[in-house]
Amino acid sequence: MKTHGIILFGHGARDPRWAEPFERLAAKLRGARGGPVSLAFLELMSPDLPTAVAQLAADGCDAITVVPVFFGQGGHVRRDLPEVVEKCRAANPDVVISCATAVGEDDAVLDAVAEYCLRQVSR
Amino acid sequence: MKTHGIILFGHGARDPRWAEPFERLAAKLRGARGGPVSLAFLELMSPDLPTAVAQLAADGCDAITVVPVFFGQGGHVRRDLPEVVEKCRAANPDVVISCATAVGEDDAVLDAVAEYCLRQVSR
Repeated sequence: MKTHGIILFGHGARDPRWAEPFERLAAKLRGARGGPVSLAFLELMSPDLPTAVAQLAADGCDAITVVPVFFGQGGHVRRDLPEVVEKCRAANPDVVISCATAVGEDDAVLDAVAEYCLRQVSR
Repeated sequence: MKTHGIILFGHGARDPRWAEPFERLAAKLRGARGGPVSLAFLELMSPDLPTAVAQLAADGCDAITVVPVFFGQGGHVRRDLPEVVEKCRAANPDVVISCATAVGEDDAVLDAVAEYCLRQVSR
């Protein structure tokens, strides 16, 4: 049986409070499923993606899905992330690493954001 | 009666495709309410926030809510955005400009993101 890990991949920021929603998201996912859930960041925060992948592989994951927690698919998701994922695949040939589309492209996520916006103007 | 506009405030990116979810979000909001909905960006894309505020004011808005379409409340939302909003208030003293918390701090938004993540590993 496969152990399938999720890595929530965010941009990173200097302010540590920036990561709070990512930690809350990881906690929600840990509560909703059995497999491991980690965070990884492109820059300014740790761990980076290779470190997070190596840790999940060491913990016994044979499949990892990287979910970019970005609104848009810009250069970070279209160019930087695939390069790092390729390095992770080369370093962990026994782990199947797949990459999701950025969460902000999902219609249900956008619906939730739209409802949040509407609540801000109806108060 | 007040005309209340919404400005979706995003980071901006070099890749024009990055803005697609923001445009879809604006279209959803325009379909859901009567008031105007605009986009504005911190950098790399136009318009900037002062330009978007001036346009809504010229269109007759006397109240504007700026919603930061960011996951985390880092330096851009905690430091850069309030500075720009202050300038917008000074330039448009007759418009009541309020600022929402970043959308990624909202629990229902995080729930939708978590459900998206779960769908990625159950396929």
